[in-house]
Amino acid sequence: MTQPAAAASFATFYQELPVLVTGGLGFIGSSLARRLVTLGARVTVLDNLNPGQGGNPHNLDGLAGALDVRLADQADPQAIGDAVAGRAVIFNLCGRVAHMDSLRDPFGDMHANVTAQIALLEAVRAGSPAARVVYAGTRSQYGRALTRPVREDHPQQPADINGVHKAAGERLHLVYHAVHGIATCSLRLTNIYGPRQLMAHGRQGFFNWFLRRAMDGEELQVYGDGRQVRDVLFIDDTVTAFLLAGMTTAAAGHAFNIATGEGHGVGELAEAAVAAAGRGSVRYIDYPAGEKPIEVGDFVADITAAQETLGWQPCTPLAEGLRRTAAFFESNHAHYWTER
Amino acid sequence: MTQPAAAASFATFYQELPVLVTGGLGFIGSSLARRLVTLGARVTVLDNLNPGQGGNPHNLDGLAGALDVRLADQADPQAIGDAVAGRAVIFNLCGRVAHMDSLRDPFGDMHANVTAQIALLEAVRAGSPAARVVYAGTRSQYGRALTRPVREDHPQQPADINGVHKAAGERLHLVYHAVHGIATCSLRLTNIYGPRQLMAHGRQGFFNWFLRRAMDGEELQVYGDGRQVRDVLFIDDTVTAFLLAGMTTAAAGHAFNIATGEGHGVGELAEAAVAAAGRGSVRYIDYPAGEKPIEVGDFVADITAAQETLGWQPCTPLAEGLRRTAAFFESNHAHYWTER
Repeated sequence: MTQPAAAASFATFYQELPVLVTGGLGFIGSSLARRLVTLGARVTVLDNLNPGQGGNPHNLDGLAGALDVRLADQADPQAIGDAVAGRAVIFNLCGRVAHMDSLRDPFGDMHANVTAQIALLEAVRAGSPAARVVYAGTRSQYGRALTRPVREDHPQQPADINGVHKAAGERLHLVYHAVHGIATCSLRLTNIYGPRQLMAHGRQGFFNWFLRRAMDGEELQVYGDGRQVRDVLFIDDTVTAFLLAGMTTAAAGHAFNIATGEGHGVGELAEAAVAAAGRGSVRYIDYPAGEKPIEVGDFVADITAAQETLGWQPCTPLAEGLRRTAAFFESNHAHYWTER
Repeated sequence: MTQPAAAASFATFYQELPVLVTGGLGFIGSSLARRLVTLGARVTVLDNLNPGQGGNPHNLDGLAGALDVRLADQADPQAIGDAVAGRAVIFNLCGRVAHMDSLRDPFGDMHANVTAQIALLEAVRAGSPAARVVYAGTRSQYGRALTRPVREDHPQQPADINGVHKAAGERLHLVYHAVHGIATCSLRLTNIYGPRQLMAHGRQGFFNWFLRRAMDGEELQVYGDGRQVRDVLFIDDTVTAFLLAGMTTAAAGHAFNIATGEGHGVGELAEAAVAAAGRGSVRYIDYPAGEKPIEVGDFVADITAAQETLGWQPCTPLAEGLRRTAAFFESNHAHYWTER
């Protein structure tokens, strides 16, 4: 996926580099950690394996001894202080991303997305002020898109509690840059899909659940007319964005949309999942109670800032990404189909 | 200050109405509680008297028996659940507003401005879903003004941790409106001044400290050239805005700038404080270390939304507000000059 020149510089930059990946047993964190191990980095992973959030020990299978995995709560000052000490780059993927869950458990969402973020930033300020910190933000920070494509300076009016806390977590990172000089940046992720994603439930998004239902030969339920536009991005392209952000000095103090910049209808995405799985079917239904108020409408990101500042370019076509995702889960079904 | 017509409707609306004022021993909360008692409301006050935040038992002097004062932490589910039960209007002024303090104690700031806010909103959702909730927001949510006058849809990029948490607290209120149907709104307050303000230190703002220094016959220190523009509002006008917000159905789901809409230079405000006190002097100095990064530049609010939706109009001239403030503190010096 990566251009040859960038691949060479990745290895040069990350070889032997001490890095931390928080949330590193999760979908994106583990994919990033695996890539960093391949690049020769000295990788530490911190994760609390909070049930239902996507942390999965199988995500780092085959890497025993190749990295240092620590099971602890990022909000624990001792644990996070130890984890950030001596790291050159900190990829901060600890957090929750489930919208409806945040409405049911606002304090739990706050703990992961605000308390644990302050704990990390305070630990970096006190013990690793020269480290770069790359935060995983989300397009949910914007809420309903008032203009499209959505640029980074679009107002942030999150539609649910998770979005409020994720936006606060990002802004805290940027304040620590402005006030304390920490080299923080944020990647606002769109709907990410790919191998190692949580597949046991659909509370973190719809696209993993579509593929799960299709692979099970079942019916995919699309709300409304299925024309809601989403911008979905394959995991490998996402990992590349994190690697670039971790090595780009000019990223400090900024937030970047990480997405394809191309919209697909939700119905179209359902059909693509069925095609990749080779089974399943699509059915259009009314919005369930409780989902409609937090539906944020169509979303397509403007990715110019990431292209220009990070030199990033998404390059995995949807059909190929889905094919590779389906192939992974065909072989690893047992580790992902039921909640740990 | 209030127009006769509005005054009549205030009494009609609030007479015998059960209301809660959180942070009700603080500057704005107590001023509002006093006015509500005068209007015949059944007033409950909740405050934890957190040291250094402005809560002051003397603020409700002379009202023993006229209202119900409860000393408790708003983040305590039992205390807040009991406090919101049966209230028709909840004026939610619990919170911290000190910028530098938030950098030194981010967890304490989060507790007051996020945790305690979720606790209140969850208590309202569970036990008082028909109550109106008026949240005290702040112009610090905006950060540096990109355009002036600042409208409510201006981007929110707070420059310090306090601003991040206050913005999150407001957005949580608006999410509870959108998702759960609670009639919440937010008043984004500019620099408020007046009787009963915290005068023991200058960490919550500059204007109270200017008047304090002037009344002590000392030197007022103005940073830089003193041309930084601020929008300062007298307490009585602020209280009127809260009363209107509590009775305006159309306010639900919205945020309103509460300010004069007129800017004054910080140097000019210092001179006005000296004039009101009849003593003191003004000196211009360089920015101290640590203050410059969180200086947000000039600020003037657009107050059209509050004028049109709430029917609110600020009407106390600066010189009159300062004169009344100085007169109050001449007589009540002992209760305000030293920290409790």
